[in-house]
Amino acid sequence: MNVAYLGPEATFTHLAVTSCFRNEITAKPYITIPECMDAAMNREVDLAVVPLENAIEGSVNLTIDYLIHEQPLQIVGEIVSPIRQHLLVHPSRKDTWQNIEKIESHPHAIAQCHRFLRQYFKTTPFDYTTSTGAAAKFVSEHPECNMGVIANEMAAKIYQLEIVKEDIHDYDNNYTRFAILQRPNQDAALPVKNQSSVDKTTLMVTLPNDRTGALHQVLSAFAWRQINLSKIESRPTKAGVWDYFFIIDIEMKLDDVLIPGAIAEIEALGCGVKLLGSYSSYLL
Amino acid sequence: MNVAYLGPEATFTHLAVTSCFRNEITAKPYITIPECMDAAMNREVDLAVVPLENAIEGSVNLTIDYLIHEQPLQIVGEIVSPIRQHLLVHPSRKDTWQNIEKIESHPHAIAQCHRFLRQYFKTTPFDYTTSTGAAAKFVSEHPECNMGVIANEMAAKIYQLEIVKEDIHDYDNNYTRFAILQRPNQDAALPVKNQSSVDKTTLMVTLPNDRTGALHQVLSAFAWRQINLSKIESRPTKAGVWDYFFIIDIEMKLDDVLIPGAIAEIEALGCGVKLLGSYSSYLL
Repeated sequence: MNVAYLGPEATFTHLAVTSCFRNEITAKPYITIPECMDAAMNREVDLAVVPLENAIEGSVNLTIDYLIHEQPLQIVGEIVSPIRQHLLVHPSRKDTWQNIEKIESHPHAIAQCHRFLRQYFKTTPFDYTTSTGAAAKFVSEHPECNMGVIANEMAAKIYQLEIVKEDIHDYDNNYTRFAILQRPNQDAALPVKNQSSVDKTTLMVTLPNDRTGALHQVLSAFAWRQINLSKIESRPTKAGVWDYFFIIDIEMKLDDVLIPGAIAEIEALGCGVKLLGSYSSYLL
Repeated sequence: MNVAYLGPEATFTHLAVTSCFRNEITAKPYITIPECMDAAMNREVDLAVVPLENAIEGSVNLTIDYLIHEQPLQIVGEIVSPIRQHLLVHPSRKDTWQNIEKIESHPHAIAQCHRFLRQYFKTTPFDYTTSTGAAAKFVSEHPECNMGVIANEMAAKIYQLEIVKEDIHDYDNNYTRFAILQRPNQDAALPVKNQSSVDKTTLMVTLPNDRTGALHQVLSAFAWRQINLSKIESRPTKAGVWDYFFIIDIEMKLDDVLIPGAIAEIEALGCGVKLLGSYSSYLL
């Protein structure tokens, strides 16, 4: 089974894929989130794994927007993985790391280490890259650049960089949720290792235009059934100005009675509802 | 009156400031959103103007998070400005712009032109910068780099770049909301030009831990009073894992009865409520 992931090698997505799936899979790196999702839709791979939300920085908007507007894959699973950020440099600079002139990483990784950077590198500029792995790759290939990179342990190992400062993320309890995506109506079992999981269902809801309290009515349909929502999030529809759709995560698998009943009621109120997936969430 | 804005010169924030305020103000560029907000708190300036939300890309999380976690400024106004993106190159490359080898801009600007880039520059890499103005400045100072930049008309004028493709943003109806921020309890009148505005109030609400349906109850307090919400958004608290606070925009100014009544009820339910501002929203 082929699995696309947000590459290059040693990104947090790669780490999540190798930690969650059994060795029998072949993990294939793609450079952007859209390319991962395109690969799943075009049958180049069986599954795509992309970041969905970080507990500190919030949602990865590109994943949600691309799923809603461009490639209607279904969510067939979720991986929740702890995130530890380290400061890495080329081995030749391990004793002079305090003098690095630039720091490279993904914008989320830089944001997660905001306090550390303000304390140690207040005036050092940073460069945003498309992933922590890409930043590590660049620094390993450019020993002449006096740069540091924020990335994970796997990146230090694969790109042979030196960890000079461990656990530089500002907040403990830093986790990232990764979505496991599949073409619609393709229901192969996931080759996951034996690990604990909880059930989830994700819906997208659009509200009728300009109806005061429509969101309140939507939540009522869940509340009186005592259906627990673990998350509700708004995103711009891109169609109208200041028009939003909502992504709602429910803490149970799709059943025959409660969720279908809530969906039917919400639709009867004039809202649009789309089931994005009902799946297991694996905790690493 | 001194106004800090997200610089350098010719960013969309700069354009919003010069369009909304009378000429008597002195606009001062700062390089990052936190630095703008720090300047207002440290009395270096009287007001800070920073981007808050784009109609297509969604909220500028750094602004919201810094306002909540670091610098408790009050929102004293909002500027809503149309966004037009263009492709700019150094004048020496205006006839060979199809051959540029890299595109520089702010991540939001690049995301807003995703379709254009996939059509014209499918394999061209891009570099993220802290603002569209910074990207334009870099390209104007480095004629030897074969680069394009996505930025506004003001950037083309100030940095003497050539607009080679106009209006390359994917979606019409592209607007950005900018927050006008001030130190708490400092109530100077805003030096705005004569322009249309609507009233708004913004609240931050935190929910009690693990209470099913608490958000539903919060919305009930507004719904039964027929208080119209223009937006509700969740952000991670950064304290717990998968714990969120909510930013709620109300379509009216703070009154003596309805909003205070709703706030009192929400607090009685065990939620935290903080008034972030009650202000005029100016439409450019």
